[in-house]
Amino acid sequence: MNNTLQDLERIFHPRAISIIGSSNREGSFGRLFLEGIIRMGYPAIYPVHPREKELLGLKAYPGLREIPVEIDLAISLVPRTEALKVVQDCAVKGVKGLILFTSGFKEKDVEGGSLEQEIVRAAREGGVRLIGPNANGIYCPAAKICTFPGALKVGGLPTESGSVAVISQSGSFADYTCQVLAGKNIRFSQAAGYGNESDLGAADFLEYCGADKKTRVITGYLEGIKDGRRFYELAKKISRQKPIIIWKGGLTESGAKAALAHTGALAGSRQVWEAMFKQSGIISVHSVEEVTDYVTAFSWLPLPKGKRTAILSGMAGTNVGTADNCLITGLELAQYTEKTNKKLMAILPAIGTTAANPTDIGAGVLVNPALYGQAAKILLEDENVDMLITITGPDNPAAVRGLAEAAKTANKPMVISLFDITGLVEPQIKYLQEKHIPVYTDPKRAANALAKMAEYADFKGKE
Amino acid sequence: MNNTLQDLERIFHPRAISIIGSSNREGSFGRLFLEGIIRMGYPAIYPVHPREKELLGLKAYPGLREIPVEIDLAISLVPRTEALKVVQDCAVKGVKGLILFTSGFKEKDVEGGSLEQEIVRAAREGGVRLIGPNANGIYCPAAKICTFPGALKVGGLPTESGSVAVISQSGSFADYTCQVLAGKNIRFSQAAGYGNESDLGAADFLEYCGADKKTRVITGYLEGIKDGRRFYELAKKISRQKPIIIWKGGLTESGAKAALAHTGALAGSRQVWEAMFKQSGIISVHSVEEVTDYVTAFSWLPLPKGKRTAILSGMAGTNVGTADNCLITGLELAQYTEKTNKKLMAILPAIGTTAANPTDIGAGVLVNPALYGQAAKILLEDENVDMLITITGPDNPAAVRGLAEAAKTANKPMVISLFDITGLVEPQIKYLQEKHIPVYTDPKRAANALAKMAEYADFKGKE
Repeated sequence: MNNTLQDLERIFHPRAISIIGSSNREGSFGRLFLEGIIRMGYPAIYPVHPREKELLGLKAYPGLREIPVEIDLAISLVPRTEALKVVQDCAVKGVKGLILFTSGFKEKDVEGGSLEQEIVRAAREGGVRLIGPNANGIYCPAAKICTFPGALKVGGLPTESGSVAVISQSGSFADYTCQVLAGKNIRFSQAAGYGNESDLGAADFLEYCGADKKTRVITGYLEGIKDGRRFYELAKKISRQKPIIIWKGGLTESGAKAALAHTGALAGSRQVWEAMFKQSGIISVHSVEEVTDYVTAFSWLPLPKGKRTAILSGMAGTNVGTADNCLITGLELAQYTEKTNKKLMAILPAIGTTAANPTDIGAGVLVNPALYGQAAKILLEDENVDMLITITGPDNPAAVRGLAEAAKTANKPMVISLFDITGLVEPQIKYLQEKHIPVYTDPKRAANALAKMAEYADFKGKE
Repeated sequence: MNNTLQDLERIFHPRAISIIGSSNREGSFGRLFLEGIIRMGYPAIYPVHPREKELLGLKAYPGLREIPVEIDLAISLVPRTEALKVVQDCAVKGVKGLILFTSGFKEKDVEGGSLEQEIVRAAREGGVRLIGPNANGIYCPAAKICTFPGALKVGGLPTESGSVAVISQSGSFADYTCQVLAGKNIRFSQAAGYGNESDLGAADFLEYCGADKKTRVITGYLEGIKDGRRFYELAKKISRQKPIIIWKGGLTESGAKAALAHTGALAGSRQVWEAMFKQSGIISVHSVEEVTDYVTAFSWLPLPKGKRTAILSGMAGTNVGTADNCLITGLELAQYTEKTNKKLMAILPAIGTTAANPTDIGAGVLVNPALYGQAAKILLEDENVDMLITITGPDNPAAVRGLAEAAKTANKPMVISLFDITGLVEPQIKYLQEKHIPVYTDPKRAANALAKMAEYADFKGKE
């Protein structure tokens, strides 16, 4: 393990932390962070406040140097003009990592750019690793620590560990993506929002998550990358072991201008990025919704052997449109074996059904929902079928249960699409996500997710 | 009003209906339809059953001819071999419209094709208008009638009328799209699932909904069209008055094969359809989710004057990515006036914010949510802004309320995107949809919806 990986290990699993700029004041960030981190259950918090002796029941200290224990991680909420002093104090105290939540540096103006340079120099000289400035820091469930303000505001993120890592230049992406995924029963190894990337950045976090045994899927949001070549080489290597799903912001001219104002990043040309993603096997996405759709699929499903997809529903029209969407996204429709056709015909009513792919098991499933699970099992056994998309209404819970059973015994990717009927769909989604079965509120999104899996499997197969 | 429009008026507002193939048997379609239509509140149901004297508390009749009142609409659930007899009975009884739920006709095999021809001939000779076969019929809230089995199974569709019409070759599309939209507070003028289009079809329903004053938005699903030229001419005329949002299934080779098996329709080439949609101003979609996203926007928002879009959030990374998505989908980023920039700078914190578009009001909105509504109002007043996309977390209900207030006083399209955090997002979505404010769980979908509005406004402007 190189030095940076060791530093990150210490930062993600700190023995004690300090919050500089902690506050008792209602509606302040100082209070929001302190309250939130206490609530997550992190046990060793040492708040710093110039005057208060106690904050929310914790002993407060006038400065870092007065804290009687070693501090591995500090979080600074002070204004930009005071940030250099905080870095210097961290250096003296021997703090390993400093999260600079503070913004107003190179992304803001020339003065901010100079301030940032001074801070980086001081940190390097003092052996302090920086996350930020303009960053919201880290989340590590195993350490019961989270410094994402949005999540802290609503009760924090899960303290149970999982296998998804989130790396983001944008703090709000890290914050909200973790919240969205947590609500869909995804759990995390670690996450980081690193902002201006003045020291620790995309390549460092990627390398850490790549080396981390718990992490099986990596997702993230990038604007620019300080060390593009290193990131590319790492991604190429790591994506052979685990999928890397990235949203690259600033692909258009206006987006790039906004990125410069956001994190001071030079976003680069779209063509260059797209080529880089393709060559390094990175799965490219353009929204948090796509991240969610793909992370659940990659987390919970085995990789497909090919792109031959079966479609199953009792809704012929939706089947037709879904067949279109599969083909448009690069999937193929599976040609069932004769055996499968026979087995299907043996269980399907003769009228109002189609055995061939896309398989229409007829409107009769409204009154005979068991057909869904039976047909799904037959299709999953077919050697010509690599993946299965099933579609039903959330008004048919017995059908959903039958499909869930088929999915759990499958050794192939199977996903379920439910129509997004408010009031009916929520309990069915919850039921499936608790069983780690990817569920989509539209079959087009299901097709997109499976297409990404097939593309990635193809990439991995080409050693 | 021509004859077909008069026939459809009678079919959508029948004075009395009969269900042929009604049943007492639990788990049968005969019972599902009867129970469901009773529950919708339709007052004049005359079930037909060969033996039973009473079904679910209603007097049953051995045949259509024995019913003592005039029947405007009959729904037949009998097997295909008995369908001809039903058509003949309808002709004798003077029934205006017959919904043939029964399938197994031209979509199935040669024998079914011959049967369908016989039925059509008998219907034409007897003055009976057919919906189907292989169709699930109609929904008309004003008449308290719905014959969609999925919806009937879960308590029916709203009996309150609205302004959206649904026309679909696929019964399940009509059924589930109405259920999905109803759950998002959309109400309907009427809907129809017409299946094999042996008599009444796409062009007829389009003409009816075009002429219908209550209908302000038309959506639908098509595979093939019997009378393509007439449909095209009607669409070209009607889309000048109201948007027509269509999902065309069978665009790919596999999709077209599936369409043939579904409704016996010849789906035609993708290029021809796309050109036809473009020339006639039809808004083309490829999923129920897109239908939902666009129908809410077109139903609840004024049309934009142009495509200059403002983006507002406290999340700079999401802003960057949303700017990309706006540009990729054909929108432009608005250049604010100097006045707007000054007004924004007067209310925004100096650090961690960006006044220029995309406007980042900073992470401070987590503790100062009122900024959202204030900034939205400033942007909506800018003469250089045609439309506004706002993005916030559902963890900030005060921000959502502020945005909702700004939206309700706006005379420009404004939409809200909320991150899809299970448990937090649902009440906020409900709140906004009750106020008829389009809400999306991803800003990319918001951008797509506004892009469609701008395209349609452009089409309408070119008289």
